[in-house]
Amino acid sequence: MSDLRLVGGTVVCLDAARRILLNGEVGCSAGRIDYVGPARPEAAGSIVDCRGKALLPGLVNAHTHAAMTLLRSYADDMPLQPWLETRIWPVEAHLRPEDVYWGTQLAALEMVRAGVTCFHDMYWHAPEASRAGLEAGLRVAPSGVLIGLLPTSDAMLSEAIDFVDACLAAPHPRRHVRFGPHAPYTVPDAYLEKVIAAAAERHVPVHIHLAETAKEIHDSIAAHGEPTVRHMHRVGLFEVTTCAAHCVHLEPDELELLAAKQVGVLASHTSNLKLGCGIIALPDLLAAGAVVGLGTDGTASNNNLDILEEARLAALLHKGVRRDATLVTAWEALELATWRGAQAIGLPDLGRLTVGYRADLIAVDLSAPHLCPGTNVVSDLVYAAQASDVTDMYVGGAPVMRDRQILTLDQPAVLAKAREAAQRLIRLAAS
Amino acid sequence: MSDLRLVGGTVVCLDAARRILLNGEVGCSAGRIDYVGPARPEAAGSIVDCRGKALLPGLVNAHTHAAMTLLRSYADDMPLQPWLETRIWPVEAHLRPEDVYWGTQLAALEMVRAGVTCFHDMYWHAPEASRAGLEAGLRVAPSGVLIGLLPTSDAMLSEAIDFVDACLAAPHPRRHVRFGPHAPYTVPDAYLEKVIAAAAERHVPVHIHLAETAKEIHDSIAAHGEPTVRHMHRVGLFEVTTCAAHCVHLEPDELELLAAKQVGVLASHTSNLKLGCGIIALPDLLAAGAVVGLGTDGTASNNNLDILEEARLAALLHKGVRRDATLVTAWEALELATWRGAQAIGLPDLGRLTVGYRADLIAVDLSAPHLCPGTNVVSDLVYAAQASDVTDMYVGGAPVMRDRQILTLDQPAVLAKAREAAQRLIRLAAS
Repeated sequence: MSDLRLVGGTVVCLDAARRILLNGEVGCSAGRIDYVGPARPEAAGSIVDCRGKALLPGLVNAHTHAAMTLLRSYADDMPLQPWLETRIWPVEAHLRPEDVYWGTQLAALEMVRAGVTCFHDMYWHAPEASRAGLEAGLRVAPSGVLIGLLPTSDAMLSEAIDFVDACLAAPHPRRHVRFGPHAPYTVPDAYLEKVIAAAAERHVPVHIHLAETAKEIHDSIAAHGEPTVRHMHRVGLFEVTTCAAHCVHLEPDELELLAAKQVGVLASHTSNLKLGCGIIALPDLLAAGAVVGLGTDGTASNNNLDILEEARLAALLHKGVRRDATLVTAWEALELATWRGAQAIGLPDLGRLTVGYRADLIAVDLSAPHLCPGTNVVSDLVYAAQASDVTDMYVGGAPVMRDRQILTLDQPAVLAKAREAAQRLIRLAAS
Repeated sequence: MSDLRLVGGTVVCLDAARRILLNGEVGCSAGRIDYVGPARPEAAGSIVDCRGKALLPGLVNAHTHAAMTLLRSYADDMPLQPWLETRIWPVEAHLRPEDVYWGTQLAALEMVRAGVTCFHDMYWHAPEASRAGLEAGLRVAPSGVLIGLLPTSDAMLSEAIDFVDACLAAPHPRRHVRFGPHAPYTVPDAYLEKVIAAAAERHVPVHIHLAETAKEIHDSIAAHGEPTVRHMHRVGLFEVTTCAAHCVHLEPDELELLAAKQVGVLASHTSNLKLGCGIIALPDLLAAGAVVGLGTDGTASNNNLDILEEARLAALLHKGVRRDATLVTAWEALELATWRGAQAIGLPDLGRLTVGYRADLIAVDLSAPHLCPGTNVVSDLVYAAQASDVTDMYVGGAPVMRDRQILTLDQPAVLAKAREAAQRLIRLAAS
């Protein structure tokens, strides 16, 4: 029997059959979906009236650095290297655990309001990011950042292992811990091999940046005689579950390799455009059967956490670049934002309204003028809907937002604390 | 003395000096801006408290077919020609004047809510589109559609001239009528020459589609021995004020020509991506000194009327395509959405908060989580703000929306009428 019943909406199941149920119902119990079908006239459980709304699986932000919301609009219209070296790193040098906590809570506020139920995060002070996300009621896949070039690198790895072990020892149904080696150019092979071993031993996935810039490929060839992805394969990374952000610069054999190894590819279109990195070969990856999701990256390079917007951009961009209007359909874009993204971050029982899947779902109000006349709900969601149309959110069957009211966070307090933290960091970086 | 005073906001003037005034004020009287400066402690006039908000010139939708909102999400993920021939035209064949009226009112609802104060429109039954936009309180630059290949083409032109003459005879401060020859491939030279003569005689600009697809260029070279823009120059189009949508496929000399002739270039990035047409050379046009604005095109190829989203896409797209993160800055994108767009549609006294300019302005709430911590208002507006952050709108100094409540339109009635019209059209096209 369902504890929670979402009744009367247009249920966009995002299942293999691409079913859409008018006047449908989704039932949940014990954190999982236990019913998807026509609205049941009589059944027990707490009922939420979803007439006039679309019911969808929650959106998955497959790659972010949530606490970087503190640096939103702090440095824009700059190339990646000077942006990192002269703007971002000098601020991050002053990051305290509480900054990450409040920055992540701010990010959570934004993500809840945008229908993002789950975020795959990589950032400093991961325990604080994880705590902030869990307290917000979201599903969190946290990892720290591992850099292999510092005097403190060994200590970083020990700390990361401790965090992972602590998470594994006290499981939380909404926490899915990962290792976060930053990128091949900051993590030497020998160090990465230690991370891979730790991940393999614990059956924990690895979240990493791969092939983001042309320079990275150039440097990889200079150092290793082969481009990034091919080199990572040789080092053995893909023997563990790997979730790889960006993957913009791929040789054809590397693209096939990512598909064959079922590496999660975390496409971050906005960030790649904004930092001038280039455009991922998404149509080729999809054609090759790769596992792909959509991430916003941090807000410092986006500057928001809106996965609906990422879905729209994914659907639009490749059509124009390749002059083929049939590429990356609205359906595919919505799948990238939901179940494909969930698969890409190593959570195969997420992102579909299907019995047995995790009860992470959102309601989207369909009554706004920009969704009228309502001829095709999937096209409307991808090409016309706005983050602000999301009205309700449940994660693991528990309410997080109802009628646009967030139930889990004290919005004014979070905004005040985040502003304070941002101002302190920016002041310190400038001094 | 100002009748209307918007006090206490962050005034983003969008003037040549790119001034931003904290705790500023904008005063308006007789439909024009009469004061921009620090908040005045004592002055008469109706006062609107804008604390916590940004004040901006209203956004300009420089190219649209507003009534096509009826066809939103009716046909997606298809190339332009079959999309037009098998989906759009069969529906448009059944268009009645009242369909255009309700479709345009629906578009107006959406545009008001997205901060668009002015739309440069080309569509069938232009008098109805114009009436619908004016009743909504918006600034309208309407034109009919002139096709030169039909038995009715001469009658069309007479009708267009009558509409233009009627508008000129009874001027409305928010109506700026234009001629709308559809495109070179639907308007033979001899016919276009008649349109140019009629426009020149009346000092009325021409709104046209130019160089949208590679096929158009190919066909122009086959027919005339030269690509579209060069040919239009030879026909004499640019001797009248020309506002040219798309301009995706340009030879270098054509790009220079558009700049030299100060042709208004109406960039429609989303539509060009979605229909697989390609990507306009915006950075080159800006560098050449061209007059450029942003349009959504019709919602059937977008599928929305959100100019803030177009500004974001303009700022992001070229950085990624050309791998240069310094191209099309946030400032430039916001200018494209305001005064540059106004210039591009032939309204040089619009789109800036400057004394003497038309009093078309919007307030944007800056308090939402997705705009926190608020480090840079222009970056926040372009890269992070949402249409739903727009709270207030004044056009010609008159209120159109206050605190998100639209004052000029009966939203439920418009939605019902638009849905009814869309259903009728789609039913007829299918039968």
